[in-house]
Amino acid sequence: MSSKKPVAIVFDTFGSVVDWRGSLVAEMKELGGKRGVNGDWAAVADAWRHGYHRMLDEVTTGTRDYGLLDDLHRELLDEAMRDVGVTGFREDDLRDINLGWHRVKAWPDAVAGLTRLKTKYIVGSLSNGNVRLLVDMAKGANLPWDVVFGSDMFSRFKPHPDTYLGSARLLNLEPGEVMLASAHNGDLANARKYGLMTGFFLRPTEFGPNQAIDLAAEADWDVIADDIEDMATKLDT
Amino acid sequence: MSSKKPVAIVFDTFGSVVDWRGSLVAEMKELGGKRGVNGDWAAVADAWRHGYHRMLDEVTTGTRDYGLLDDLHRELLDEAMRDVGVTGFREDDLRDINLGWHRVKAWPDAVAGLTRLKTKYIVGSLSNGNVRLLVDMAKGANLPWDVVFGSDMFSRFKPHPDTYLGSARLLNLEPGEVMLASAHNGDLANARKYGLMTGFFLRPTEFGPNQAIDLAAEADWDVIADDIEDMATKLDT
Repeated sequence: MSSKKPVAIVFDTFGSVVDWRGSLVAEMKELGGKRGVNGDWAAVADAWRHGYHRMLDEVTTGTRDYGLLDDLHRELLDEAMRDVGVTGFREDDLRDINLGWHRVKAWPDAVAGLTRLKTKYIVGSLSNGNVRLLVDMAKGANLPWDVVFGSDMFSRFKPHPDTYLGSARLLNLEPGEVMLASAHNGDLANARKYGLMTGFFLRPTEFGPNQAIDLAAEADWDVIADDIEDMATKLDT
Repeated sequence: MSSKKPVAIVFDTFGSVVDWRGSLVAEMKELGGKRGVNGDWAAVADAWRHGYHRMLDEVTTGTRDYGLLDDLHRELLDEAMRDVGVTGFREDDLRDINLGWHRVKAWPDAVAGLTRLKTKYIVGSLSNGNVRLLVDMAKGANLPWDVVFGSDMFSRFKPHPDTYLGSARLLNLEPGEVMLASAHNGDLANARKYGLMTGFFLRPTEFGPNQAIDLAAEADWDVIADDIEDMATKLDT
């Protein structure tokens, strides 16, 4: 591990800090029960997230414009429901399910780990979510951010450099004084490309019990930890 | 008082939430004592803030470009020291005094009031300070912001409409769903002009014992309170 320490740590949020899949599946299951709507909710959540990744690729390659994640999520939800064959939700149900992203739960170690890290570092969210989504999520899950960097502050999604470098600029720091912390090797590879420090930790069930990716650090990241509490320990807090 | 409630409350910060004058005077006095530098520290603080207001007017009228408040403060500090006739500080002392803005203390009611308001509303800082300055200040003074809106997010200072309206946009709210809370009638008049709700509270010693302005609400603001705790009570928290 590098002996150099960052001034600020910005966290990838969906999957890394919050359990989007477990939270969305639980909410859809509950609402489906109330409405008498049946479905393979894990399949819907996975299709939804798959759509998101495809949409990101479209924005990155320029075939789609940047838009608020809330709005893109809504469009992708309709598609996911259709693809998995779920019918019977009303329009206001779908709107409510979409807002489930604002209510996702933190992984068990997240609040304690961030609270420790916050004593010594600036801790922020650096997410493709929009500011409002991140603010609502932080309030609901008690995430103690010092600052949230939503993609609508840059009108760009990661992996565009304006996001990684924009967080450093707004903190008045050199890129090398900021660490991206993420459970996603790809995210860290991009952050390193633009000069940020890198911290990896494991979320081996983010994508469910059969997860096949991001089960180990795939490069010599500056910090490699089991979870955010372990990262707090490795960063001396 | 209006019966309508906002979704988010964004606070003017210098003077309204933190006691910049008392904090800066105390720090300069302490450092002056260590260095054997004498001065009328209240006069320096007042000249510094006076320079800031003049600089804001220059930016508003277009004779000066937007710049980071940290950098502008540094330039204005040299001028204030010169005007008051203080000499003897080293370059690194002046740099440290300038960072005093990052360490200003909260007014006694601020943390308790914001903590109460946060249970029911999104609470944010909407300041001409830059993001890093606001983050450092919040860490030092335990201000429990859900979000900070620094002027460098908009490359504009208040009273430019991009600041007031930008905070609403990033919260995905209509201007009328956001309340500006401020101890400054002029700030509130601008916020109202752009459609925000308005909340006034008193800081009768912000500018020292002989303060002559902002000693009462000068319009029918949506909420008028004694301080932030009283505002929390008036907003049912």
